[in-house]
Amino acid sequence: MALGTDYALQDCSLARALEVVGERWSMLIVRDAFYGVRRFNDFLAHLDIPRAVLTARLHSLVAAGVLRKEQYQESPVRYGYVLTEAGQELWLPIYVLAQWGERHASEGGPRTVFSHVACGTRLDPNGNCPSCGTAVAPADISMRPGSGAADDRQRHDPVSRALARPHRLLSHVEPEAAAV
Amino acid sequence: MALGTDYALQDCSLARALEVVGERWSMLIVRDAFYGVRRFNDFLAHLDIPRAVLTARLHSLVAAGVLRKEQYQESPVRYGYVLTEAGQELWLPIYVLAQWGERHASEGGPRTVFSHVACGTRLDPNGNCPSCGTAVAPADISMRPGSGAADDRQRHDPVSRALARPHRLLSHVEPEAAAV
Repeated sequence: MALGTDYALQDCSLARALEVVGERWSMLIVRDAFYGVRRFNDFLAHLDIPRAVLTARLHSLVAAGVLRKEQYQESPVRYGYVLTEAGQELWLPIYVLAQWGERHASEGGPRTVFSHVACGTRLDPNGNCPSCGTAVAPADISMRPGSGAADDRQRHDPVSRALARPHRLLSHVEPEAAAV
Repeated sequence: MALGTDYALQDCSLARALEVVGERWSMLIVRDAFYGVRRFNDFLAHLDIPRAVLTARLHSLVAAGVLRKEQYQESPVRYGYVLTEAGQELWLPIYVLAQWGERHASEGGPRTVFSHVACGTRLDPNGNCPSCGTAVAPADISMRPGSGAADDRQRHDPVSRALARPHRLLSHVEPEAAAV
């Protein structure tokens, strides 16, 4: 039997998921899409990712049905990338993995605090609202910098500055000056 | 500022987590550790991973505090790898990512079914027991092949055969004949 990919014989849903988002940049691109980044140049500015790698990863994520291209400007016509419904379901895996990173692989307090918009309560490590007792969909979550987001550790590109303003997930975040 | 790694400037707990388990083999090794694989040769047989890559990944996971070496035999002395407490907290990220893979990147029914040992109820996609209404720790979860684990898609190495028997997560699974 020929090996289609290195993981072809790992008959496991995790291996399948990792084929889609297992590459680290892919996961960070999807994270940025949740945070409200949509434009190619904004991903580029925020992720310090080589242009060719970003192009390839966005293409794969569109092909896998995680992102879709959407027109955001008419004249000239410009497209951005938004999460599909399947892509939005990656919120929980990304959130709980980031929470693990915060507990075990980070110093200082939380970089980003996520709260339930309806009641303002901070989400628990499993992505639920402790006050309402429910799982919270990304569109109902707001993000703002936490105590661990010390100035000297912060990025200062225009996209990072725009993302540091409290806002709802999935809502388009535009930097003040267009990213180069 | 020098870039320590490609991700050094991604000031995000997700990026930190991905530095530990973001490489795909690492995530599959951790998955296997939850399934009860402990010995170097059993990881090797089950994952079809190059020996040098497995050695490097196990070393990184031990250095990161996700796995620890544990003696499993006295004469001759032999060591295996088990999940630390921090490693065991990767259960939820791995489980919810695999569930996403099952919904969006797999065909057929579930490859593996995970149930709450105490009541036998199948876990929901968020890792909770719908019957008891609680999050379930990996030691309280049993696994068995699901309807999507068709014979023609199954692996037939001794470790896969041993893992296909219903058993509790984290309990050491030994293949009948020692893996080569």
